[in-house]
Amino acid sequence: MSRFAPLPKPPYYAVMFSSQKSENSQGYDDMAKLMVELAETMNGYIGHESSRDQTGFGITISYWHSEDAIKAWHTNAKHQIAQKLGKERWYDHYVVRVAKVERQYDGP
Amino acid sequence: MSRFAPLPKPPYYAVMFSSQKSENSQGYDDMAKLMVELAETMNGYIGHESSRDQTGFGITISYWHSEDAIKAWHTNAKHQIAQKLGKERWYDHYVVRVAKVERQYDGP
Repeated sequence: MSRFAPLPKPPYYAVMFSSQKSENSQGYDDMAKLMVELAETMNGYIGHESSRDQTGFGITISYWHSEDAIKAWHTNAKHQIAQKLGKERWYDHYVVRVAKVERQYDGP
Repeated sequence: MSRFAPLPKPPYYAVMFSSQKSENSQGYDDMAKLMVELAETMNGYIGHESSRDQTGFGITISYWHSEDAIKAWHTNAKHQIAQKLGKERWYDHYVVRVAKVERQYDGP
């Protein structure tokens, strides 16, 4: 399975989630898997890309067809539980940026 | 030193670089270090965030004040050499997306 998300014709939207994991990973892997499965059921979901290094610093970018789709994802009840646990338990710090993808290319 | 980039007031721009490393890392670490030092000298550079996991899949996002700043970075002579080596040697595949950051928040 490709680690790269599909490339629809821009414009579309990206949610960039940069995070530093805490030392508490209790339930993290299961929830991460659940959230991917849930996102895939959401209207407007395009795909996601994710990397976390050995220091626990990671970036996950999810791609969406519209701002409305992002809002529905953000307010989804199960996702809200994951967000709450993330704040309380899993992340020392995180930043979320929402951006409109204007152009793209791939290689080599 | 923080792994997180500064958070100026949006809008600003993000260059999302997702990549799968090849098995050839000759010169890679030195060039990556040089490119960070070079980016920091460029007008309009805000910062960057980067993560690469043990499988060699990584995401680097650089942040810029304008599209013109991104174009100047893309066409910088030293950066062009790095791009050429990246295509020839370091990456099995990569995707570049340029996006306008519209909103952001951090936590916990």
